[in-house]
Amino acid sequence: MNSVERNEALEFHRKARGKVQTFPTVNIRSERHLAMAYVPGSTPVCEEIKRDPVLAFDYTGKANRLAEVSNGSALMSMGDAGAAASLPVLEGKCLLLKLFGDVNALPIAIDAKNYEEIMSFCRMLAPTVGGINIEDVSSPSSFYVVRELTEALDIPIFCDDQQGSAIIILSAVKNSLKLINITIEEARIVILGAGSAGIAATELLLVAGAKDVIVLDKSGILGPSNQAMDPIQAALSEKTNPRGVKGGLDEAMEGADILVGLSQSGIVSKEHIKRMNKHPVVLALALPEPEISYDEAHEAGAYIYASGRIEDSNTILNVHAFPGLVRGAFDVRARKLTNSMLIAASDALSNMVDRRRLSPDHICPRFFGSETTPRIAEAVGQAAIKDGVALLAAPEGKIYSDTWNRLYGDIEHI
Amino acid sequence: MNSVERNEALEFHRKARGKVQTFPTVNIRSERHLAMAYVPGSTPVCEEIKRDPVLAFDYTGKANRLAEVSNGSALMSMGDAGAAASLPVLEGKCLLLKLFGDVNALPIAIDAKNYEEIMSFCRMLAPTVGGINIEDVSSPSSFYVVRELTEALDIPIFCDDQQGSAIIILSAVKNSLKLINITIEEARIVILGAGSAGIAATELLLVAGAKDVIVLDKSGILGPSNQAMDPIQAALSEKTNPRGVKGGLDEAMEGADILVGLSQSGIVSKEHIKRMNKHPVVLALALPEPEISYDEAHEAGAYIYASGRIEDSNTILNVHAFPGLVRGAFDVRARKLTNSMLIAASDALSNMVDRRRLSPDHICPRFFGSETTPRIAEAVGQAAIKDGVALLAAPEGKIYSDTWNRLYGDIEHI
Repeated sequence: MNSVERNEALEFHRKARGKVQTFPTVNIRSERHLAMAYVPGSTPVCEEIKRDPVLAFDYTGKANRLAEVSNGSALMSMGDAGAAASLPVLEGKCLLLKLFGDVNALPIAIDAKNYEEIMSFCRMLAPTVGGINIEDVSSPSSFYVVRELTEALDIPIFCDDQQGSAIIILSAVKNSLKLINITIEEARIVILGAGSAGIAATELLLVAGAKDVIVLDKSGILGPSNQAMDPIQAALSEKTNPRGVKGGLDEAMEGADILVGLSQSGIVSKEHIKRMNKHPVVLALALPEPEISYDEAHEAGAYIYASGRIEDSNTILNVHAFPGLVRGAFDVRARKLTNSMLIAASDALSNMVDRRRLSPDHICPRFFGSETTPRIAEAVGQAAIKDGVALLAAPEGKIYSDTWNRLYGDIEHI
Repeated sequence: MNSVERNEALEFHRKARGKVQTFPTVNIRSERHLAMAYVPGSTPVCEEIKRDPVLAFDYTGKANRLAEVSNGSALMSMGDAGAAASLPVLEGKCLLLKLFGDVNALPIAIDAKNYEEIMSFCRMLAPTVGGINIEDVSSPSSFYVVRELTEALDIPIFCDDQQGSAIIILSAVKNSLKLINITIEEARIVILGAGSAGIAATELLLVAGAKDVIVLDKSGILGPSNQAMDPIQAALSEKTNPRGVKGGLDEAMEGADILVGLSQSGIVSKEHIKRMNKHPVVLALALPEPEISYDEAHEAGAYIYASGRIEDSNTILNVHAFPGLVRGAFDVRARKLTNSMLIAASDALSNMVDRRRLSPDHICPRFFGSETTPRIAEAVGQAAIKDGVALLAAPEGKIYSDTWNRLYGDIEHI
């Protein structure tokens, strides 16, 4: 952003004073309403929930409330920026979850130094919400937190940086592969960035059939000779780089079909693109600025280019997938997330681009399409039911239509 | 409540599914808006706040966001009911804070076993909010939490059970004293219930000039011979019961001018009222049902009767005072709460009842009056400025008019 854009963004945020607010679901116009909504009306509800805490799903906002939790330790390109600095992102995410998913999300920036503190905070918070999203927490902490909270709690633990990224990346990879006419098993995929998104995307690509994935970060390609790997990266390295390529990005890019960038602006050069196979697919997803620009990538011969820039033609942002993922999980009261749910979300998202419209400049659906969230939610909910992690049943099509009605139907929620 | 009313309340809550929701403050209708509110628009804001965390007050919702935190350990007459059971009360409070104070409150029910866990949770949560309200936490934990968090954090720590109760009780006592024509220094006051509300109300009554206050709970009158006192009660006992009355409620009520009930339904009998001085003032504030009913109290000779029942003529509920207290503290960005702020709130509230309308059946203002919150907020904010705990200045009358405009003005917030 240039300085005019920066000032415009600051001014926008100064006026918004928090992109979300608390709002009534019921109106209170008289003493009678007050008695109903406060005391004594709350009393029998408290008593019922005291008797059986699971009734909080029915009688309070718990079932549709998500906690957006971050300690700001991995905030876009800023690294460890502190809790308060994560608030604009958390509030933005809460805004989008409401607008695109009708989920009530609470922005919660926490002063937590390590994963044990994040764990402790989230365990205490659990009674309040139907799910927790771990946002912008550095890896490998984010993996430990998600894994251990999933074990400990009976509500789904989301990590948009992991799951949302994995869904949109798998979806973009699948649509790219249709255009360059190779299968996911044949594809040589390079994942640049071995943080939350890179690791989770790699895991999901492997589940979806990918065989030749090279993952690397600043320390080079993950593998036996890399001394800088954390335990999560070390475990992943055993399932990746089957050809035993050694070195860094230069070596990894040799003959690659797809580059997925999850690192920083400026890391990828034209030379890197030129080393790729004949139809280079460049998904340059670093935020706020991509690893290489649209123009440079195309000058170097990129066949398909996508970034997280909303101004570009192929925009890949988690907000495509995440509202539908939460909506689907919440609608069937899923106890946890499974790989099938993520794959189902990814398939629903890639199928949003009709084959007849699929082109190198159009591998992702546009924002503001009214089908995205309902279709993803339906796919996710049905997958949860099949996997036996859903507490509520739903006939086919119901989650789709419920979601559509929530978002675009006539019925007022207020 | 009878069973019809109970079912009605349950059904109301089932439909409301959380009495509050998350709502946008800005509208997102295009890719450009999305870029502004999410990425890259959030980036410069995050960077500014990383540089100086206090800017979160200007660029995010922090300044007007309150955390409503409870572990459900002292939930009305239910005692320790667990975190989830506190949600209906927390959501109700959030609803009222929005409607009567335009404060954005987050309902946060936490699974915390002791005051150390509550402390730890709130310390981590602090970057998110402009203030924290400790709700329905058992005494003496609630006092330790409020005291230590006030020391540790630079945002105000509210405890409506303490401060809100103290404000409304002092206000009702003052208006009652005008009617029975004695001064607060002369009045004999009995506080029945030595939990959060009872202790805090007693402290504020003493600050306001009361000399003869007897505090008691199930174990009897607080004093040297009471073996069951916790440290907070023991400290209070040294400032109360100057006549050294021994025993329980029977003895305490002998010649009392004012009874403040903060205990449980049915604890006070007609015999108790008959022991009082010639114009008995009975503030029977137990929730959800008062210590003695309006009819019984009047049959026994009560001159003034008030309860927390919204249906009764004199309703004393914290919701009268609390939205204005938070509004005033937030508007001047008070770092903490002082006794002067509570006394100012109490004076503003008692002055809401015009002397010409003051009568035994009208010692409290009605709900839904448009003056209550603006006047309390103005009084609280100015007191904070005088006490040197306010980070923002405000000319006289500004907080009043800002609050009035927030709540009833023409300007749309969405």
